[in-house]
Parts: sequence; structure tokens; C-alpha cells
Amino acid sequence: MSSEGFGEDCLGWAARDASGVLSPYKFGRRALGDDDVYVKITHCGVCYADVIWTRNKLGDSKYPVVPGHEIAGIVTKVGSNVHRFNVGDHVGVGTYVNSCRECEYCNDRLEVHCSKGVYTFNGVDYDGTITKGGYSSYIVVHERYCFVIPKSYPLASAAPLLCAGITVYSPMMRHKMNQPGKSLGVIGLGGLGHMAVKFGKAFGLSVTVFSSSISKKEEALSLLGADKFVVSSNQEEMAALAKSLDFIVDTASGDHPFDPYMSLLKTYGVFVLVGFPSEIKFSPANLILGARTVSGSVTGGTKDIQEMIDFCATKGIYPDIEVIPIEYANEALERVINRDVKYRFVIDIENSLK
Amino acid sequence: MSSEGFGEDCLGWAARDASGVLSPYKFGRRALGDDDVYVKITHCGVCYADVIWTRNKLGDSKYPVVPGHEIAGIVTKVGSNVHRFNVGDHVGVGTYVNSCRECEYCNDRLEVHCSKGVYTFNGVDYDGTITKGGYSSYIVVHERYCFVIPKSYPLASAAPLLCAGITVYSPMMRHKMNQPGKSLGVIGLGGLGHMAVKFGKAFGLSVTVFSSSISKKEEALSLLGADKFVVSSNQEEMAALAKSLDFIVDTASGDHPFDPYMSLLKTYGVFVLVGFPSEIKFSPANLILGARTVSGSVTGGTKDIQEMIDFCATKGIYPDIEVIPIEYANEALERVINRDVKYRFVIDIENSLK
Repeated sequence: MSSEGFGEDCLGWAARDASGVLSPYKFGRRALGDDDVYVKITHCGVCYADVIWTRNKLGDSKYPVVPGHEIAGIVTKVGSNVHRFNVGDHVGVGTYVNSCRECEYCNDRLEVHCSKGVYTFNGVDYDGTITKGGYSSYIVVHERYCFVIPKSYPLASAAPLLCAGITVYSPMMRHKMNQPGKSLGVIGLGGLGHMAVKFGKAFGLSVTVFSSSISKKEEALSLLGADKFVVSSNQEEMAALAKSLDFIVDTASGDHPFDPYMSLLKTYGVFVLVGFPSEIKFSPANLILGARTVSGSVTGGTKDIQEMIDFCATKGIYPDIEVIPIEYANEALERVINRDVKYRFVIDIENSLK
Repeated sequence: MSSEGFGEDCLGWAARDASGVLSPYKFGRRALGDDDVYVKITHCGVCYADVIWTRNKLGDSKYPVVPGHEIAGIVTKVGSNVHRFNVGDHVGVGTYVNSCRECEYCNDRLEVHCSKGVYTFNGVDYDGTITKGGYSSYIVVHERYCFVIPKSYPLASAAPLLCAGITVYSPMMRHKMNQPGKSLGVIGLGGLGHMAVKFGKAFGLSVTVFSSSISKKEEALSLLGADKFVVSSNQEEMAALAKSLDFIVDTASGDHPFDPYMSLLKTYGVFVLVGFPSEIKFSPANLILGARTVSGSVTGGTKDIQEMIDFCATKGIYPDIEVIPIEYANEALERVINRDVKYRFVIDIENSLK
């Protein structure tokens, strides 16, 4: 396998500095290795992670940053050892594109926890190159980190599954939330939250959505199929739900108190955090007296991702998306920051990145 | 069943006010009901809960308070419906003496979570009486809340199992810590912590004890059989254990930071809190990135308690105790406050309460 690129034949949009402003950028990708899949990108979802690294929020951005880790596309070449994919297949690529493939997590196909994992963008790959994400015309990826998207499933809809979808699906399965008749609370109704509602309903759960704004009520109930909607500042409605929920999935990334939600869990209830507040703080009584559990999670392994895509295809679960051209990417990121999106932007790479 | 007592034939020691000072006190208990067991108390463990309610720390003490919920003794009478126990049997009574017996938790023998559960002391029983604990000569208890203590197991050693023992055993089993070869951290080395070490070793775990004081090192390693001892303020030793533990049981009741311990857990690691700090606070990164879990717990149901006693008897697991006469109770409580006990005081009721 050669580490030489094909030259600068990949079109992308990149941020050049912490302003985060994206603009066209040409770059090279590695030559197709024996185990690699060459994916012509058709769509890429817009995730809050794209804001974090284009704007250097964590201080570790390696400019130019080509964001995007909710990638869907079509296989156009495969390496000589690739058996799982053929030219013409529809595939997805998620939040990581490499891992050691020999640690306990890799062996269990939980590669997301591999200490040598490489993120899809702004990561340092094993050949020393800085990875570049899906706001681009194509990507070359080891087949292990590619996922089959059934042809019946629209590529635009598939993109958000690769991060938003797996981020909620993985802990929901791990904590056995797929038990019909149980009750689920979902905090926050963005890209992750609206998928948690859809998975919850597909699992046969009674789903209550908690939001800071009444404005999302109608859509939560009618469009997403939630059973109940509670404005979290309404103390009366919150009190009425005390000790009533088996599970809560917290997708809110902003800071918020935890105790009001913890107290809604039944004994042995499980609170899963997938948002990223600045601090977690709650009363020991809310944890101890009901023997409750608080657990974190971050995307999922390759086994879970394929399982989740197949589940969505089988059950007809589709993210609600707003398809945008690449030229709208900067405005889209602004709207993501302002939580003004229902419920995921997907960039139509195929038709707009030229 | 009559709710009349036998008169004031029960000898106890009670606190009369928030000073918490205990002194002799005579009172009556209910007449033996058809489902009741009359237990002549031989031993009672001294738990921090005894401090809490004798000193009105939660503002809900109902004086006079006769503390004690680690009770061991001998059956001297049984009601006409009692089938599990006979006169002469050795039995234990733990932290609760009644529950609704019809809710989902009671049906699963998880009575500790029944919303109508009645604590062994300072509780209001269904007949309206204030429950009185094991710092007394006898107790009358519905057989459901009594546990068989094998005759081979010393009654003095059995007493601390009823609270300290079950408090750590129950979450250890619930979170599947009985997997030989896995690693356990134990924070705090008091009544609960030393039992967590013993259970951990019996489960085949590699056990690391964390303590604020080097003074407990020798005993932790040689007497309790821990594999490793770390002074929690030693940052070098703490850093060397990063991401190395499968489980942590936190028995420290004082306030302490959580992040230094959370970061010691492997991916999917479980942190169980059984102490009672004033606040729980940690960084989301420590929860999310390793998909870690924080869980609370409080004693256990009747099924777990009997299982735990039988496990201790079979495996020869005995709490390390200091047997004291009832006259020493006030000093013992002071020493419990000052954490100056190795590792549980047990009052020799039989030989000193006369």
C-alpha cells in the first residue's frame, strides 16, 4: 500500500482558522490501499462536532479543518483485499476511520473505545496525515470502518445515522431500553434527541420529551410520535412525573440541572448522558435512594453501527433532515449553534460540491 | 393479632434529644402476631445511621430513639403462621421491618425500595408506633424481615452483615462484580469498605484500597487481603492506575472529589456510591468518553440479604469487629464519627444489657 496521494483531486470545504469560516479547499487523499474503499461522497450530515473543531473550541484544531463525520456515499473503487463491498454499493462512514485492530475493544468491535482510534477529521492517521472529513467529494477508508447502507434507504437520510443515530442507539441497547412497555424520557430535541424519540417508539416505549421551549410540542407529538411533552420549567408537570420513568436519554449539550430529571426516574432507573455539559452535579440522595444509574456514552463500535443502520432500514426509521447545498454550510453551522434546526442538516455534496 | 404490647418489658438504650446521648430506657413492643418472630437480641452492630438519628442530623428524629439495625439474636417465640423459623434458631434483622408486601418491589423481594417500607428504628410502623432498634433486649418482627443465620456463623460476626455487608454486596452483585480476574477499587476502609474488600477477594477480584491515610496500609494488605493500597493524595500512584479498574465501590461518607477516581475506570467501568457525601460532581468527559457508569445503592432486598449471609457462611467471610458492652455505646458512636474503628463495633447485648 502506498501512502502517496493521487494529487490534490479531492474537493472540500475547510476552515482555515478559529473563525471557523468554511471555504473551498483542494487536497489529496491517500492512494487506495488493498483493504481500502474509495467512497464518492453524496451526503454529509452537519454535527455540533463540526462547530467544535472548525472553531478550535478544544484548542486542538489542525487547520485546515475539513469537518464532517456523518458520511454517506457510493463505492467507486475497492482495494484488492476488500470483500465486503463492491463498486456501486451504498456505504456510510462515521466518526472514526482507523483503530489498532488488536486491542480488547477492537476485538469486540467496540473500536470507538480503542485508545489508538483515529477520528474521521482533525485526527492524526497512522501514516501521519491529518484526517479530513465528509465536507468533501470523496474519502478513502479501510473497509472495516465502512457500513452497508441498504439501497432502499435514502443516502441523505442515512448520513445522520452515522453519528446522531448511533450516539443514542448504542447506549439505549446497552442499557436494555428496547423493552416494550417501559418508559423513556428524552431531554433535548435536536439531532440526537429526535432520533432517541424515534428509537424509543420503535422499541415500544412510552416516550416523554422534555424541552425548554413549548415551541417544539406540536412536532414532538405529531411528527415524531412522542407520547408526552413537558416544558422542563413547568414544576407542576415535572412533579407529576416523579419516579415514573425507567430511562432518560439526555441529549442537551447546554448546562442544566440534573436533579429535577433524576427524581423522575423509578428505582433502578437509568439516566444516559450523551450531551456534553460543562459539569455534572446532583444530589447523592437522587442516586442512592432509588439505586439509580447515570451512564455516559459516545457513538458506538462498528458492530453496533451496522446493526443500527439495518434496524432503521427494517423499521423504516428516518431522521428528519433539511438538505442543504455546501454553499449554505457556514449558515448551517451558525444555526446549529443557535439550535435552530429540525432536526439535522445534511449537505447534498453530490449536487453542490463541484 | 393484637396491637397491645406486653408492657414495658423491653430494655433498651435510647437518645432523648439531639445531644444523642444514650441511656437506659424501658419500653413495650407489640404482642407477638401470627406472622411474627420474637427475637432475643444477642448482638447489635453500630452503624453511622445510629449517629444520624440519635443526633437528629436529618431533622426527623422521633425521640426517644433506640438505634440499631444490625441485629442478631435467637428466636424465643414464633407466631402461629410462622413456618420459616423455630424457637432456638439464630436470626438476623436488618434496616427495615415492614413493607407493603404487594408492590412490584415487594413482589420481587426488593422490599428496600417499597415506598411504604418501615425502617427498623425511628420509623412509623403500620400500627402507628415508632419503631425501636436493636440497642435493646428483644424485638418482634414479621418473619419476612428475619434472616436465617447458620449456627456455625458467630452471631456477633453476623450482626454487621445486616447493614454494612448487604450495602456493599447488593450493588456488587447487581453490577456483576463477581467475575474472577476483574479489578476493584475500594474507597474508604470502614465498616462498609472492609466488607467490600472481603467480598472482592471472595469473588476473585484484584482489589486496590484507596484511603486518605497511610496508617491503614498494613492492615489492608495483610489482614484484609487487598492486593494494593494507594494513598489517594499520592498523584503519582493515582496516575499510574489510570483506566485500570473495572469497578469502584465508594464507601467514603465525607466529601471528596470524584474525578480522580472516575479516571481510574476502564471503558464501561462502574462506580458504585454507597457512602453519602453532600454532593456528587464530576466532569462529563470522565463519564462520556469511557462510557462509564455511576450508580447508587442502599442495602438490599430480603432475597439478597439471605443470599449474602449464606455466601458469607459458605466462604468463611467474617467482618472484623470490636465487641463492646452497651455501656460503651456513647463512646463507640463518638469513635464512629471520628472513623476510629476497625472495622465495626458490635454491642454484646446478651451479656451487657441487663
